[in-house]
Amino acid sequence: MGSDSDLEVMSEAAKVLEEFGVDYKITVASAHRAPALVHKFFMEAQKQGIKVMVAGAGGSFHLAGILSSLSPLPVIAVPIKAKALDGLDSLLSAVNMPPGVPVATVGINAAKNAGLLAVQMLAISDEILEKKMVAYKKKLEEENKIKGEKLLKIGYKKYLQK
Amino acid sequence: MGSDSDLEVMSEAAKVLEEFGVDYKITVASAHRAPALVHKFFMEAQKQGIKVMVAGAGGSFHLAGILSSLSPLPVIAVPIKAKALDGLDSLLSAVNMPPGVPVATVGINAAKNAGLLAVQMLAISDEILEKKMVAYKKKLEEENKIKGEKLLKIGYKKYLQK
Amino acid sequence: MGSDSDLEVMSEAAKVLEEFGVDYKITVASAHRAPALVHKFFMEAQKQGIKVMVAGAGGSFHLAGILSSLSPLPVIAVPIKAKALDGLDSLLSAVNMPPGVPVATVGINAAKNAGLLAVQMLAISDEILEKKMVAYKKKLEEENKIKGEKLLKIGYKKYLQK
Amino acid sequence: MGSDSDLEVMSEAAKVLEEFGVDYKITVASAHRAPALVHKFFMEAQKQGIKVMVAGAGGSFHLAGILSSLSPLPVIAVPIKAKALDGLDSLLSAVNMPPGVPVATVGINAAKNAGLLAVQMLAISDEILEKKMVAYKKKLEEENKIKGEKLLKIGYKKYLQK
Amino acid sequence: MGSDSDLEVMSEAAKVLEEFGVDYKITVASAHRAPALVHKFFMEAQKQGIKVMVAGAGGSFHLAGILSSLSPLPVIAVPIKAKALDGLDSLLSAVNMPPGVPVATVGINAAKNAGLLAVQMLAISDEILEKKMVAYKKKLEEENKIKGEKLLKIGYKKYLQK
Amino acid sequence: MGSDSDLEVMSEAAKVLEEFGVDYKITVASAHRAPALVHKFFMEAQKQGIKVMVAGAGGSFHLAGILSSLSPLPVIAVPIKAKALDGLDSLLSAVNMPPGVPVATVGINAAKNAGLLAVQMLAISDEILEKKMVAYKKKLEEENKIKGEKLLKIGYKKYLQK
Amino acid sequence: MGSDSDLEVMSEAAKVLEEFGVDYKITVASAHRAPALVHKFFMEAQKQGIKVMVAGAGGSFHLAGILSSLSPLPVIAVPIKAKALDGLDSLLSAVNMPPGVPVATVGINAAKNAGLLAVQMLAISDEILEKKMVAYKKKLEEENKIKGEKLLKIGYKKYLQK
Amino acid sequence: MGSDSDLEVMSEAAKVLEEFGVDYKITVASAHRAPALVHKFFMEAQKQGIKVMVAGAGGSFHLAGILSSLSPLPVIAVPIKAKALDGLDSLLSAVNMPPGVPVATVGINAAKNAGLLAVQMLAISDEILEKKMVAYKKKLEEENKIKGEKLLKIGYKKYLQK
Repeated sequence: MGSDSDLEVMSEAAKVLEEFGVDYKITVASAHRAPALVHKFFMEAQKQGIKVMVAGAGGSFHLAGILSSLSPLPVIAVPIKAKALDGLDSLLSAVNMPPGVPVATVGINAAKNAGLLAVQMLAISDEILEKKMVAYKKKLEEENKIKGEKLLKIGYKKYLQK
Repeated sequence: MGSDSDLEVMSEAAKVLEEFGVDYKITVASAHRAPALVHKFFMEAQKQGIKVMVAGAGGSFHLAGILSSLSPLPVIAVPIKAKALDGLDSLLSAVNMPPGVPVATVGINAAKNAGLLAVQMLAISDEILEKKMVAYKKKLEEENKIKGEKLLKIGYKKYLQK
Repeated sequence: MGSDSDLEVMSEAAKVLEEFGVDYKITVASAHRAPALVHKFFMEAQKQGIKVMVAGAGGSFHLAGILSSLSPLPVIAVPIKAKALDGLDSLLSAVNMPPGVPVATVGINAAKNAGLLAVQMLAISDEILEKKMVAYKKKLEEENKIKGEKLLKIGYKKYLQK
Repeated sequence: MGSDSDLEVMSEAAKVLEEFGVDYKITVASAHRAPALVHKFFMEAQKQGIKVMVAGAGGSFHLAGILSSLSPLPVIAVPIKAKALDGLDSLLSAVNMPPGVPVATVGINAAKNAGLLAVQMLAISDEILEKKMVAYKKKLEEENKIKGEKLLKIGYKKYLQK
Repeated sequence: MGSDSDLEVMSEAAKVLEEFGVDYKITVASAHRAPALVHKFFMEAQKQGIKVMVAGAGGSFHLAGILSSLSPLPVIAVPIKAKALDGLDSLLSAVNMPPGVPVATVGINAAKNAGLLAVQMLAISDEILEKKMVAYKKKLEEENKIKGEKLLKIGYKKYLQK
Repeated sequence: MGSDSDLEVMSEAAKVLEEFGVDYKITVASAHRAPALVHKFFMEAQKQGIKVMVAGAGGSFHLAGILSSLSPLPVIAVPIKAKALDGLDSLLSAVNMPPGVPVATVGINAAKNAGLLAVQMLAISDEILEKKMVAYKKKLEEENKIKGEKLLKIGYKKYLQK
Repeated sequence: MGSDSDLEVMSEAAKVLEEFGVDYKITVASAHRAPALVHKFFMEAQKQGIKVMVAGAGGSFHLAGILSSLSPLPVIAVPIKAKALDGLDSLLSAVNMPPGVPVATVGINAAKNAGLLAVQMLAISDEILEKKMVAYKKKLEEENKIKGEKLLKIGYKKYLQK
Repeated sequence: MGSDSDLEVMSEAAKVLEEFGVDYKITVASAHRAPALVHKFFMEAQKQGIKVMVAGAGGSFHLAGILSSLSPLPVIAVPIKAKALDGLDSLLSAVNMPPGVPVATVGINAAKNAGLLAVQMLAISDEILEKKMVAYKKKLEEENKIKGEKLLKIGYKKYLQK
């Protein structure tokens, strides 16, 4: 991410990767404040064995596009809601990339989904991750089902009291 | 894609896949008009050996989210600009998915980038695709460099006449 | 609704239905987290005697569109304001449905109006509901009239103190 | 509708009603230019046997809200894209109604869906309409399926040539 | 205004009118909840000696347009910021009126400016109001000048401490 | 107006004033290109017998706000749709004026309504204009009524053919 | 700036100028409330030895455009987020100036960047400022690097605790 | 600029620089397609005697921010209107830069103003340019004045015929 003020949001991606047992590195590297560093580090990302990159920032969010320009790896962008414009600036900065340089944008502040998307990409060629992802989705469904049955049974008044 | 009126945009993704020698299937399957079909087909996508899915639609664009709900595979969304709202409705419909169900959104009408992103995902575990992607990016750079040198040399007036 | 975090908003619809003496079921069933469940349940909604469906969600709000695709019943959508974009994403996700698959969208967070709209639909063929609706509108008018007369009489300063 | 310049869009609703064999009246009655007329006519709509109202206009679109204020019947709003703001002004004018006065808004220019929604409302208590609506949805599905199979079979190049 | 929840904002207009010694009436009369009342009252506004009307509401703000449709008097609209969309819905609902039915829209929540605009309209044919308006603008200028000189003199640090 | 490229839109205001027999002056005076001229001319507007000012421009539309700052007269703003952003920039530039300096904004490109609003302001103290305005509104109503009756009678198919 | 309510934001520009040792004047001068003052003062800005101007305001933000119209000096605009519309109104009011009258707009509330941009403009012909700017950017890079290394080393959990 | 498809817009900046007799280089160098080139070239921009940089692009417009990150020079951004979203994406991508890395954004497609702003920056320390800029503004004023007088004299009907 570009600034440590985004760490609270972006750590959600790290948590997902830990939950799935995927190795990751998390760091602060601003495309705007430390461009030479970003340039050097990410041009060699592929050689260092990195498979997927996740970038997050608010406002004029360029980091994801820059990472995509510097390496052939897939890049996931997490637009972060900053003080003004409710995240729209960050979303539009990330998503409308020119032909040839794709970025995979997830929702505003959706670092958790960025982590899951990274796992899905890795799971294409990793059966264990694939199974974990199937199990994860099963669990989501179960939890949703339980809530649904509970609400049907006890009604909204009791449900809201808890 | 949901409607064959989106085929002209979405065929750009198919062209990229052909260029990289990646097998693909392209079809029309509306989440809204043929939900049972979509449901049955995509719940089994993984079993049929599909690795990545790309969905495109305009307006209230739900197809990508639905595909992501139906399978553990990564799903790429191409928001398509329809008659009103300049593609903003389609972009926002696709990108702000709930936690647990990620969608990888590319730019409005950016089916070409969707194809490239799919290739990048597959290239994680496919050295030949990886090399082709590196070569593709090299070519982009070369073309850009040649244009830049030409413009520097002949000036904007001559450049614009061609 | 897709998530129980939307229950506080959506329970307003339930309250209206209770007020009018209309039977209803309220549950959590995420189109994204529990698609098979949603699919199975709502394809049979009509056969179970359901007449109108009301769906609510925030962000990429697909549930209403999916319900409309799964059954011939009228579907009412309540876009819910989530953390970013002030409800605009949810509104646009719900409202711009493709031809053939209508959704009746009410205002952002307007679950109360969704309940009233459901009653109006049922009242088309139910004279008792029709009379209750006429009375309801009369009451709205009366309350508004009383406030107007009070404000005219006591002035804004006294009115604001209360 | 408020102006005859909206007739081309709004006639799509009439066509649907004809297709389903539903009686309807279509007229021009501007809430802004002929308020007394609108007032008188629609306060008595219910007594005249009208069951559902559909209103369409561009810009500051008030007609649907006004009809909803004047009668207990369900009102469907079709926001129409005018010269500026791509229909967003019309959509927001129609949809965010105050509590107590619901309007069922469909997509921008989506008069066809307004007609279908009206049929769905009437079908709640009309078995023949209900069957027609089920058949209509079946047909949508069939057409979509045929297009999908054709595209899968002949590929996008041949499909686009036609 | 349509709802007494808007009174805190709208009372700013009343305060301006009091400051300028202009007679006014302030009341609650919802175009949506009490349409017959609004209709009757405002069709006769001109005959009752009313010269200018000021309307304020949030969300789908129709009241100003309706007043303009009901009388030949100038109507000033104050779009009010409601819970969603930051006042944009209210602004667009009020301002884009069809040809023939003008509304004079001021800024979001700008009831004070609505009061001043009403005074300016009355001042066209009222020399005393005209002089008061000139004096008011003079005072604005003086206050601004004093602040400017103070800031220049004491610097921003001291200025902010106060 | 600030630029003669806006004359086609703004001449609609002039036509209305001619229709009502109101004297007017129309000129080009850019707040940005000829500020000294604008300043000098409009500070003395009131002394020259001007009663109401109408300003129109696209993009960053400051002219109306500047006129309001320079004189105690009421100022009407016509936001004009320029090449980008569909008139939203112009509308927001005009309407959200600070407290103390009101501007009466009409719809995007709505110069006709600006002319009518100017007439309404003058009609406050001019019985002849008042009567003309009442007649104008009557005519609007009549025309609308005739169209409505015609459409009811001949149906949309014949109506659209003409 | 136009109002002293913007001083807290705008003082960030002053702090930067102090840090770089650049002389500056900061004052309140509303284009709308004190137009004659603004006019007189800024027409002579260049003669008084002023080199760059920085203006900030919220809502309909005209001050920067007016300053640019009044003098040949470069003008920097700081759009300020006001109560409604999240700063979008202010940004669009400032940035879309007509040809011939440029304004250099920085981000919403970005007074610090306005100060830095002013320094960059002055540094074009001031070697000492140029060196300070190079050093400033170096420092930004260093700080970013240190944060990045720290996060890599201690992980997000410990980093967030501090 | 990033792509030669933007040359028609961006050449307006070159024309201004020619008109003012300012040396310039114009080239294509995509931050996304040729990042190494951009990086190398612009890190040394200052050493090569470049004083001001102007960047233009559509969609996710990162080039200006990247140039600002790579050198201490002032950078002017021209957001270009691309196929979707009417230039809003490009504007927001450019303008909301993080603290420490300013970009001077002009209006959408406003390359002419970018050229003028560059001249204004250079004119701070160049008396000849300063005089030319004063003369340029004088000419703008004169042209505006002549148009205004002509329109006052011949009326809008004759003016529009020409």
